[in-house]
Amino acid sequence: MTTRAVVLLSGGLDSATTLAMAKAEGRDLFPLSFAYGQRHQSELDAARRVAASQGVREPVVFELDLRLFGGSALTAEIDVPKDSVGDEGIPVTYVPARNTIFLSIAVGYAEVLGAGEIWIGVNAVDFSGYPDCRPAYVEAFQRVIATGTKSGVETGRPLIRAPLIDLTKAAIIRRGTELGVDYGITHSCYDPGPAGAACGHCDSCILRRRGFEEAGVADPTRYA
Amino acid sequence: MTTRAVVLLSGGLDSATTLAMAKAEGRDLFPLSFAYGQRHQSELDAARRVAASQGVREPVVFELDLRLFGGSALTAEIDVPKDSVGDEGIPVTYVPARNTIFLSIAVGYAEVLGAGEIWIGVNAVDFSGYPDCRPAYVEAFQRVIATGTKSGVETGRPLIRAPLIDLTKAAIIRRGTELGVDYGITHSCYDPGPAGAACGHCDSCILRRRGFEEAGVADPTRYA
Repeated sequence: MTTRAVVLLSGGLDSATTLAMAKAEGRDLFPLSFAYGQRHQSELDAARRVAASQGVREPVVFELDLRLFGGSALTAEIDVPKDSVGDEGIPVTYVPARNTIFLSIAVGYAEVLGAGEIWIGVNAVDFSGYPDCRPAYVEAFQRVIATGTKSGVETGRPLIRAPLIDLTKAAIIRRGTELGVDYGITHSCYDPGPAGAACGHCDSCILRRRGFEEAGVADPTRYA
Repeated sequence: MTTRAVVLLSGGLDSATTLAMAKAEGRDLFPLSFAYGQRHQSELDAARRVAASQGVREPVVFELDLRLFGGSALTAEIDVPKDSVGDEGIPVTYVPARNTIFLSIAVGYAEVLGAGEIWIGVNAVDFSGYPDCRPAYVEAFQRVIATGTKSGVETGRPLIRAPLIDLTKAAIIRRGTELGVDYGITHSCYDPGPAGAACGHCDSCILRRRGFEEAGVADPTRYA
């Protein structure tokens, strides 16, 4: 039987590439997206477009309102910093425990589906400095699955697959391009304009633009 | 400054005792409850009663619909087993990844509050066989906090406090009784009657009833 895999799909460049890599390994794919009170609905629209363009199931959208707690530029009324990528420390766009919350729900979904894998597009090279994107974190979460879930205790599954974790943004873009990913429909900007155009100056836009330059791939992003 | 603590509060016997223990240590308490599609609203009502009776803040109720995934007798239309406590394996009342999801959200809330602790009433002695109630699980989750959250990386906090983990149900009841916990307003039953009366035969009722007997404390539970 084909291995089922839950894939966390935000509709950004990294998760679109991760989805294509899981597909290339022949997995039976169950994309999972979150409506978590993010300021920009464009993310969910992009997730749906990406799934459709890769010919996989429409994402299940799990709703949870992280605005209840406040505390991040991505969910609250805090300005997104511009032209500051690489400044020290964890940026204000950090959403408290976001990947932990998303992975936890993915584990619940995987257990119900009998899925053997959870794919997540975290990356510890060209990233904004979020702690929940690093190998030590992924290993720690795997141990939570092994000790605290029915499927983990009984089978050691689901495994977390993080195939981008040690790739540069350029390498991610090259790999995705080989796999036919349409980056023109992905959405990475933290602060898009009214029609969904990328701002070009937030951490995410800067890392993405540099990635296309270094990869020698034409950047299809629509900038404001 | 008084240490802030998030306390997971289901309104059951264990979480009511945990809340009283955190209060006895002088913490500034932030109870957190979940509306997760459980079949019985009685749980949330009990959580509010318990917080009021101990004179602490009303619980913040975080909504998330675990029914989306199905797969448990506590959220779906599966019969709750009766008179079978201690049978082998993980019971059908297991909700996939429930404590992991709850702890993840508690960590997000703790980070926003600047809370140094998260209290949870898990217990590995008189329990139903859920894997996410054991010390190895709590240790693994602590490592997720240490590696994957801003506050964990910067301060090692929040700490998970699980003061019931190695107590018998009788010892929990004795401790709570010393602290003045009113167990008559708590709710533990997995399958309550129409007016909220306990069934007396699910795992939770049986463990609770035995606990009162062994503690030599009068059982205030209203049985159907």
